[in-house]
Amino acid sequence: MTDLDELRRITAAAAAAAPVAAAAPDAERARWLRAVADRLDEHTDELVRIADSETRLGSTRLGGEVARTTGQLRLFADVITEGSYLEAIIDHADPSATPPKPDVRRVLHPVGPVAVFSASNFPFAFSVAGGDTASALAVGCPVVVKAHSGHLELSVRMAELVAEALTEAGAPAGMFALVTGREAGNALVADPHIKAVGFTGSVAGGRALFDIASSRPEPIPFYGELGSINPVVLTSAAVSARAEELAKGLTGSFTLGVGQFCTKPGVVFVPDGGGFEDAVAGAVAGAAGGPLLTDRIAEAFPRGLQSLASDPDVTVVAGPVEQDAAAEGAQPVVLATTARAVRERPDTLLEEVFGPTTLLIRYGSEEELLGALAEVPGSLTATLHAEADDDVASIVGALRERAGRVVFGGWPTGVAVNWAQHHGGPYPATTSLFTSVGATAARRFQRPVAYQSAPAAHLPPALQDDNPLGIPRRVDGVIVLP
Amino acid sequence: MTDLDELRRITAAAAAAAPVAAAAPDAERARWLRAVADRLDEHTDELVRIADSETRLGSTRLGGEVARTTGQLRLFADVITEGSYLEAIIDHADPSATPPKPDVRRVLHPVGPVAVFSASNFPFAFSVAGGDTASALAVGCPVVVKAHSGHLELSVRMAELVAEALTEAGAPAGMFALVTGREAGNALVADPHIKAVGFTGSVAGGRALFDIASSRPEPIPFYGELGSINPVVLTSAAVSARAEELAKGLTGSFTLGVGQFCTKPGVVFVPDGGGFEDAVAGAVAGAAGGPLLTDRIAEAFPRGLQSLASDPDVTVVAGPVEQDAAAEGAQPVVLATTARAVRERPDTLLEEVFGPTTLLIRYGSEEELLGALAEVPGSLTATLHAEADDDVASIVGALRERAGRVVFGGWPTGVAVNWAQHHGGPYPATTSLFTSVGATAARRFQRPVAYQSAPAAHLPPALQDDNPLGIPRRVDGVIVLP
Repeated sequence: MTDLDELRRITAAAAAAAPVAAAAPDAERARWLRAVADRLDEHTDELVRIADSETRLGSTRLGGEVARTTGQLRLFADVITEGSYLEAIIDHADPSATPPKPDVRRVLHPVGPVAVFSASNFPFAFSVAGGDTASALAVGCPVVVKAHSGHLELSVRMAELVAEALTEAGAPAGMFALVTGREAGNALVADPHIKAVGFTGSVAGGRALFDIASSRPEPIPFYGELGSINPVVLTSAAVSARAEELAKGLTGSFTLGVGQFCTKPGVVFVPDGGGFEDAVAGAVAGAAGGPLLTDRIAEAFPRGLQSLASDPDVTVVAGPVEQDAAAEGAQPVVLATTARAVRERPDTLLEEVFGPTTLLIRYGSEEELLGALAEVPGSLTATLHAEADDDVASIVGALRERAGRVVFGGWPTGVAVNWAQHHGGPYPATTSLFTSVGATAARRFQRPVAYQSAPAAHLPPALQDDNPLGIPRRVDGVIVLP
Repeated sequence: MTDLDELRRITAAAAAAAPVAAAAPDAERARWLRAVADRLDEHTDELVRIADSETRLGSTRLGGEVARTTGQLRLFADVITEGSYLEAIIDHADPSATPPKPDVRRVLHPVGPVAVFSASNFPFAFSVAGGDTASALAVGCPVVVKAHSGHLELSVRMAELVAEALTEAGAPAGMFALVTGREAGNALVADPHIKAVGFTGSVAGGRALFDIASSRPEPIPFYGELGSINPVVLTSAAVSARAEELAKGLTGSFTLGVGQFCTKPGVVFVPDGGGFEDAVAGAVAGAAGGPLLTDRIAEAFPRGLQSLASDPDVTVVAGPVEQDAAAEGAQPVVLATTARAVRERPDTLLEEVFGPTTLLIRYGSEEELLGALAEVPGSLTATLHAEADDDVASIVGALRERAGRVVFGGWPTGVAVNWAQHHGGPYPATTSLFTSVGATAARRFQRPVAYQSAPAAHLPPALQDDNPLGIPRRVDGVIVLP
């Protein structure tokens, strides 16, 4: 556990590193990110071994996650090299305007030291060197990571590798540190040197930290990804055309990573009497369960199932509601209820159950479907399976209102890391209007500064007339490409 | 006063208007904004008359402010027509990648109904049809304005004109409404239909509303501009070269609008013994005071002066600390202290005093200057007057850390409305990383949505392959201009 004196030394060092990192050219920070990525790639086998011993997620999945994580670091190196992330805008002076307009130029600067809270379920991609860390380092913010207790040995080893790689690549001391323990985590969010927080975890834990961030004398942005039930809608025509394929796809998605993805499809709207339940029961019969990430999660899983199953309008479609997930691993379970029951008791029936389970919600009419959909809490994703000639405009509209990503004809569990990705959504999916995955995640850790009538010598390179960085900019209202 | 039943009807109507406004083409919303601007221009004389009777700011200033306000509405019409504000990003599928990458396309959608709190000091530009309203309407968000009690008659008349113009231009019912009274304002921020808040006002009032927004079951972004003391630094060389010119410029700036600008220079770092105080005393002798906006402000002004002047290290440079601003109008006052005193008692000496006053802070060395500057709370602006061969790199760095706009060789009170403007800054200047003036203010009221593998028919026009809107987009990582 990091004690509070040590924490203060760490955040003070981060604050001291901040202006140095802010002044480092983009090309140099890109090298830092690539150095970290290379270092992690070199140590993949060792890291996967430690991660598997702590999370039991298996070496195939974990190896893929290391590759995704290093790919993410390299994407942000590309993003800052391309330069649009600086949002450089130049408005030249117009002395003839009424009133006369001065020369104004705007660019984004790093906010300063950032706290990052690791997630339990992605020990690499949303952890010590995950997307929050990569995007913060990319824009020039020192990072202090709060380790997740579910994979502490891995976190410590990751932090060593990240710190070594950064130091060897020339990053300033204080650019990166790891802290452990809940007390240190809370103090980190309250620390005056910390200027923003990235978080992936539970609604309860995330909201408590959000409240600390918001009630500081100087409040700071809290970019939390808290919880998501990721609704899926199957139209009647889709189920008629390919019930078995859909059942197989759904089962693969809700059991992926033993049901511990933030994007797991937690509720599935299915047409009443369409026969989809039998298809799912068949698919689940062949699906594997597995050990859950932590004892706490393993104990909560059957409790969540039992709570749902005790509702008079919930039936069991497949799998054992009574199970000892802690001792024997979690077994996939599918439950079912009705749209009417969901409208009556949304808080009970739409609670996220972390683990390999999903709730089918039978609907009779589009009206019933839309009524129940309106009760679904904000989610990271919303998915639609329809046939080409289905009229689904209203359904798509409703899904878009509830989620940050609308998936057509696929499953939400995969999250591509690219320029367009949005991994966010209305509360409680996230506490902000930003993504934690993909290129635009960088904007969370930047603040605009405008320079008025600045002599060339005092303008950052991004704003100098001759565009020495060769980046896209808006000049006098028009985008100018390099 | 709007009672709570009426408030609920208003926010429900706004929620009903939201999807209609979101679906309206940009060109149509641009027409709405221009219709409002035209209507206000037609009624300038009437509006200025009402505003002057309530604010006593004078018809010249108020007429200019109407022009600025309608210019702002038209700027946002241009911004949404240009289309970059949608931040459209398209990443085509890459089936050969490991893992295969789906087609992902991201665009910004309006967040939904927005609450806007008017300011006392800009009855047009930061009020009923000011920048917050313009930027929210522009992106398709219905707006509910909380009127400022300091210009209620004007607010009601403005709201009539805005609502009429919007209705005649074809905007949906519920797109715009006005509420009055503190209770309605608090309830507005807590209302579940409201998805974001724009605010300009005091630190105390703004923080109270920020706390309501942050403690909702579903927290919402609160874009507050609260308070700012706007430091100015004069170098020794600048004062040697042109003390009288600087004194005249400073006096014009801190007395503009009777010292009631958010960007008023509240503290001025002056070289010890450089003779600047005499120059200021001379300039202030010729400066006019005037009536303050409200009785509360008029009573607070001399109280603030007396509190500062009672400090043992504060001296009076010019003007009457004892004055009856409520009865006789406010008289300009300049006080002075030392950098050492500021470092010892920053909370007392750096408190914003609203009205025509500024505090000179004498510094001996750059070290002393930087030490005192580090105590300055986050501000909207920071200003430097230096000579060409001054070495001011450290000072510029310190100013940039404290403010959202760094002004070179000018005065901060003018705020150009353009693409590059940033009217924001570290807390308490603002509660967010966004501006409330200029084109990028629109981003406050938009949320990203990603569409994965969407059939063309379900993609918004901004994301369709043939780019029917003709807007700039990022396609497969590269910006493509129309």
